[in-house]
Amino acid sequence: MTQFQGSHILSVNQLDLDAVQQIFNVASRMAPYALRQKRTSVLEGAILGNLFFEPSTRTRISFGCAFNLLGGKVNETVGMASSSLSKGESLYDTARVLSSYSDVIAMRHPEAFSVKEFAQGSRVPVINGGDGSNEHPTQALLDLYTIQKELAEGGRKISGMHIAMVGDLKFGRTVHSLSRLLCMYKNVSFTLVSPKELAMPDYVINDIVNAGHKITITDQLEGNLDQADILYLTRIQEERFPSQDEANKYRGKFRLNHNIYTQHCKSNTVIMHPLPRDSREQANELDNDLNSHPNLAIFRQADNGLLIRMALFALTLGVDSQLEKYECPVNWYSRKAEL
Amino acid sequence: MTQFQGSHILSVNQLDLDAVQQIFNVASRMAPYALRQKRTSVLEGAILGNLFFEPSTRTRISFGCAFNLLGGKVNETVGMASSSLSKGESLYDTARVLSSYSDVIAMRHPEAFSVKEFAQGSRVPVINGGDGSNEHPTQALLDLYTIQKELAEGGRKISGMHIAMVGDLKFGRTVHSLSRLLCMYKNVSFTLVSPKELAMPDYVINDIVNAGHKITITDQLEGNLDQADILYLTRIQEERFPSQDEANKYRGKFRLNHNIYTQHCKSNTVIMHPLPRDSREQANELDNDLNSHPNLAIFRQADNGLLIRMALFALTLGVDSQLEKYECPVNWYSRKAEL
Amino acid sequence: MTQFQGSHILSVNQLDLDAVQQIFNVASRMAPYALRQKRTSVLEGAILGNLFFEPSTRTRISFGCAFNLLGGKVNETVGMASSSLSKGESLYDTARVLSSYSDVIAMRHPEAFSVKEFAQGSRVPVINGGDGSNEHPTQALLDLYTIQKELAEGGRKISGMHIAMVGDLKFGRTVHSLSRLLCMYKNVSFTLVSPKELAMPDYVINDIVNAGHKITITDQLEGNLDQADILYLTRIQEERFPSQDEANKYRGKFRLNHNIYTQHCKSNTVIMHPLPRDSREQANELDNDLNSHPNLAIFRQADNGLLIRMALFALTLGVDSQLEKYECPVNWYSRKAEL
Repeated sequence: MTQFQGSHILSVNQLDLDAVQQIFNVASRMAPYALRQKRTSVLEGAILGNLFFEPSTRTRISFGCAFNLLGGKVNETVGMASSSLSKGESLYDTARVLSSYSDVIAMRHPEAFSVKEFAQGSRVPVINGGDGSNEHPTQALLDLYTIQKELAEGGRKISGMHIAMVGDLKFGRTVHSLSRLLCMYKNVSFTLVSPKELAMPDYVINDIVNAGHKITITDQLEGNLDQADILYLTRIQEERFPSQDEANKYRGKFRLNHNIYTQHCKSNTVIMHPLPRDSREQANELDNDLNSHPNLAIFRQADNGLLIRMALFALTLGVDSQLEKYECPVNWYSRKAEL
Repeated sequence: MTQFQGSHILSVNQLDLDAVQQIFNVASRMAPYALRQKRTSVLEGAILGNLFFEPSTRTRISFGCAFNLLGGKVNETVGMASSSLSKGESLYDTARVLSSYSDVIAMRHPEAFSVKEFAQGSRVPVINGGDGSNEHPTQALLDLYTIQKELAEGGRKISGMHIAMVGDLKFGRTVHSLSRLLCMYKNVSFTLVSPKELAMPDYVINDIVNAGHKITITDQLEGNLDQADILYLTRIQEERFPSQDEANKYRGKFRLNHNIYTQHCKSNTVIMHPLPRDSREQANELDNDLNSHPNLAIFRQADNGLLIRMALFALTLGVDSQLEKYECPVNWYSRKAEL
Repeated sequence: MTQFQGSHILSVNQLDLDAVQQIFNVASRMAPYALRQKRTSVLEGAILGNLFFEPSTRTRISFGCAFNLLGGKVNETVGMASSSLSKGESLYDTARVLSSYSDVIAMRHPEAFSVKEFAQGSRVPVINGGDGSNEHPTQALLDLYTIQKELAEGGRKISGMHIAMVGDLKFGRTVHSLSRLLCMYKNVSFTLVSPKELAMPDYVINDIVNAGHKITITDQLEGNLDQADILYLTRIQEERFPSQDEANKYRGKFRLNHNIYTQHCKSNTVIMHPLPRDSREQANELDNDLNSHPNLAIFRQADNGLLIRMALFALTLGVDSQLEKYECPVNWYSRKAEL
């Protein structure tokens, strides 16, 4: 069993299948707390340092909420424009100082490997919330957790499944990390659909091939989805292109809507997307006419992010076995949640 | 009795007189908690999503504090410059995701009706903290609550009272919403004092007339205040004018100071202002020489905002009857408050 | 004994030696809570208004964490760009309103004396977190506390010690305030090392002389450190210079590294720095090769800031005698801290 207590979570590469399953087991025990059926105060008095050197509303709030749901308090920092870093301070110094101010840190930073560098100076566990083009391990874990859970409901498993990844496979960090995680499983079929210019990088393809998985590479959506158990759509990462015009060349190339889904997919194909989806007419990679379709898993995916982050906090702070001991009542009206 | 539990608070139009009185009754029970005479932990463990897509320090902090005073935690977002919205995400998607991260949401947004659109995707109650030029219902409620409370201390009532509204009545959102609420009462006299170019919009005037109230419209301050029970001053909303020069034409046109107040008002005229007041010399619509006057209600008004927001949280989360059950001691030195 | 309860902490000038010692006594009792050996919920339910009109990540987080460690909640405001202040609101009005939303306020503002002006309108205690070029009293107190503690471990005392201050003594606010505090002690020797253009201001030198202390003024580092008990290094405050070029003239003039330290200092000379230190090659006033030296106190200094801020909150809110009464367990894995 992997010892998470006191450890950093920096990369999916540090995890083996057992470690992943351990995280997923704790995550599934978090559902009733996230759904407000129960409440726990196990981290009452603990402090999360939520350090976002680059803004990311959704991920930041998700980390903060996950910590709140375990009873802890959150200390937030967004952006560091006028900060010590611009005065020539090293990440090591920043880490030495700021890590005294919390019990665990979630951190996002625009530069690859910066979170790892920070972690070397930190006195408390650091969880990588995205370090530039490098990694975003909690997103990869929530994607994999969603796949396992959605397939399980229909009696399917990750080993043996077929996944179609569609869109910007070059700049889409999430499909890289997810592919890497899928290499721990057996006999997965990949269909990679993208414009040639936005194809999956070779090193990811090599990993997939070396794991013994099957790959089909294409630039056509229709006709290539009929075997997919999982359909993983992505947004054109326009911020990575030299210009809007350049991004627009590819935008709207692959669109999924109710009609296309019904014609080209199996009846139990699960639709995923890391969000945000681009709903502007020129892009619209995933149409709103699928919003009420039961196979649309995109919002369950976001909800699962909460469970994964709760699990990582509980594991790194060593309280995963004490959730129930600190249970307390939910006094207020709570939503009918849909996890 | 209006059922608030699980409902959104989007507009004053959704409230009738009974609903308003229900809110006010709960608000008045909040005073001892806001004053730190007592403390309640009824919302311990609950999370407020304080989503300010447009900055507003005072309103944001007031919502956050109101939630804290009930024992809850606050998750803040200010601005969304680099956010998902700029990547083409719909408000519906944003709402679906972010509403999983809290038990109730307070939201401000620069665009009219955006909060309503957001609410349609939200799984938890949404309270409108101002949607552009449209509405700011908690401000309207705190204004009305202040009027009722201030008049009551002198044995006066809203029905039958005389209110003078002064300043920028065209762009001042607060006087529009307050007027609408006053249309639920009987026999109110309005004196509307503004430059002709900044007059109250016709649709508000029609509402007032249709409610059977009396209106006097003028562009002179002096000589028109002698009947007023309530004197409601407003700031020139310079940010709505094409230029500073254009705004400056109107700035400083109507100034109230101790001398003018004494000469032109009744001895029990209550002075209100939604704040911030512009204290620069060229504007100075409400002079500091009235700061210690007992009839100056402007800071009590701001304090009442706390009570109204506490009440709305308690009502939408269904805990208004349990405040006392979760009382706990105040351990620390507390201010001599002046609510 | 100084009565801190309900008082503002605006300037080191308001403190005498007894008051300082009282703060230090409470600060030292805070160590086990900051180290997570124990936990207290004495301020559970209390609200800190953390008002940073000017960004300062490190100081802001330190105040917030200090309050969290005592069990309280934090309401944050960073920047006020689009705020009421820009609409002509006076600091008095801002204070009257915002101080209703918290039990104590920590405030930083770019203008000298603004915090004092704000305090005059505040209904709750205000702690100065830095007001422009004027004061930063919690920094001065944490510096003095660190000196006392570091010296005490070797059996030395502040009275009778030798301190060398090095670098930008003109713009470095921390050395001014620290010098002022040291004037309350007896028989301190000062060695002031700076370029002539960045010399300690005359009024500070006069204070030191009037206190009967000895001063040596020099622009040479080597050869002037051999008596120092405390070596207090500072960064070139480049943001105060007309240009980067102007700042660069002085950058890197005085560098301490392991080699220089070993050759020119006593074996028990304590190295301090207010942080951030500029680690870029052109500056590098304090080299990383000293990072593991036991006499490097810079991170202990930052940690002590937490203790000082905890002490000030406890004293102004009158709970310093009740810490133990509200002790509760630490449920989670906690860092091996190094205070």
